[in-house]
Amino acid sequence: MKQKLSIVKIGGNVIGDATQLTHVLELFSKMEGHKILVHGGGKKATEISNQLGIQAKMVNGRRITDANSLDVAIMVYGGLVSKKVTSELQYLGTNAIGMSGADANSIMAHKRPVTEVDFGWVGDVDNVNSSNISKLLHAGFTPIFCALTHDGKGQLFNTNADTIASELAIGLSQEFETKLYYCFEKKGVLRDVEDEDSVIPHINSNSYQQLLEEGIIADGMLPKMHNCFHALQNKVNQVCIGDSTMLDNTNTNYTILTL
Amino acid sequence: MKQKLSIVKIGGNVIGDATQLTHVLELFSKMEGHKILVHGGGKKATEISNQLGIQAKMVNGRRITDANSLDVAIMVYGGLVSKKVTSELQYLGTNAIGMSGADANSIMAHKRPVTEVDFGWVGDVDNVNSSNISKLLHAGFTPIFCALTHDGKGQLFNTNADTIASELAIGLSQEFETKLYYCFEKKGVLRDVEDEDSVIPHINSNSYQQLLEEGIIADGMLPKMHNCFHALQNKVNQVCIGDSTMLDNTNTNYTILTL
Repeated sequence: MKQKLSIVKIGGNVIGDATQLTHVLELFSKMEGHKILVHGGGKKATEISNQLGIQAKMVNGRRITDANSLDVAIMVYGGLVSKKVTSELQYLGTNAIGMSGADANSIMAHKRPVTEVDFGWVGDVDNVNSSNISKLLHAGFTPIFCALTHDGKGQLFNTNADTIASELAIGLSQEFETKLYYCFEKKGVLRDVEDEDSVIPHINSNSYQQLLEEGIIADGMLPKMHNCFHALQNKVNQVCIGDSTMLDNTNTNYTILTL
Repeated sequence: MKQKLSIVKIGGNVIGDATQLTHVLELFSKMEGHKILVHGGGKKATEISNQLGIQAKMVNGRRITDANSLDVAIMVYGGLVSKKVTSELQYLGTNAIGMSGADANSIMAHKRPVTEVDFGWVGDVDNVNSSNISKLLHAGFTPIFCALTHDGKGQLFNTNADTIASELAIGLSQEFETKLYYCFEKKGVLRDVEDEDSVIPHINSNSYQQLLEEGIIADGMLPKMHNCFHALQNKVNQVCIGDSTMLDNTNTNYTILTL
């Protein structure tokens, strides 16, 4: 029987709030079995960029990662956030290692091809090194991944943290029974976006199609749900969406996605 | 018989020069056996501090690490330098993991006690977790340590990279036959500080005393040599001091220290 692995992605809202972050890390620490945490940098990257006088570059409303912005991402995601989360988790008894995709050659990517927009140093994931990550898990370590990947030739990339979480889950599903948790600011997928009490408890491929047709899943939820079903179609066992209290195993008020 | 372990500390002058850094990493990649790299942040930390408008605080001519300076150290040593060195080493075929002392709970420290000077968030090393570091080495990974430690309660510290290198060497000498390399800007310990060709090829405890009495070892070399002999007295096999070309095994022009 496969061993269980939980992959938890925490959102920028949690990273930016010290009290909330500590609470989430406490819940994460108590989770049993092998686990991996994935985080971005929250608002701190924008804050540091502003202080350094680096202007956010936008083309057609999309954010571009130029060389300076990449350096800020490496400093904030890979340094400040990663090391603070790691030291706090060590305090909580979790043997964390803060990593980018370059560490242990974990996540390989290539520069996103230029179409109408050149996104700059943004990487699309090619491959997760499940063998190296598995070695770390079996040695008792808990990898903490930030939103950075590399091309194996010395170049780092900015990569969406949601994508990193789903690619890790997919890559490790061969060996582990994987469960993917997406923590965000809402309690789950809502039937009525204005009503926090309208959490849809369970969505499968059929009801997903129906929710799409009814327009209940729209806007920002579209890429998130796409990521989730992409993971499920690639052997990830279960995906959970909700706010970070879903990591508390007495809470059942969140959305579970299955095929 | 014990397995061999090389611990290489590279200086700020190397970190600050991309061409020289690549060359040193190439030499490091070719070194056989288990190995660990230790680095600081070079001038980049000062550069980023200046850009962020953080003034270096000095008391009695000693640099103080306040909360803002610690954040810069975490961003630059633990983020920018660590991840760039790691991604470059991956390209060179070395399975590097960029770490602080918090990662894998590797290096525990306590805040330096306040005497005439409160150094701020500077940590003095208490303990190296040789068991966790050894697990990483045996799994085929090469730890890359930056100049950061932690107290196990969520607090990170700025810690001298020379000290980190010697403490790692001492901590791992129980299990490994350790050789410690201190790379700096000179070819070795010089008999005449003005003459680069006056490298002293071998120093032991006796000749060390003599060199101290003759005043040949003085100023900045004093703490460095003290660190070296402290390591040798604690079961480190050999310490080498020279510029980074000493990592090339055809070069013999550097200083070897033994007990």
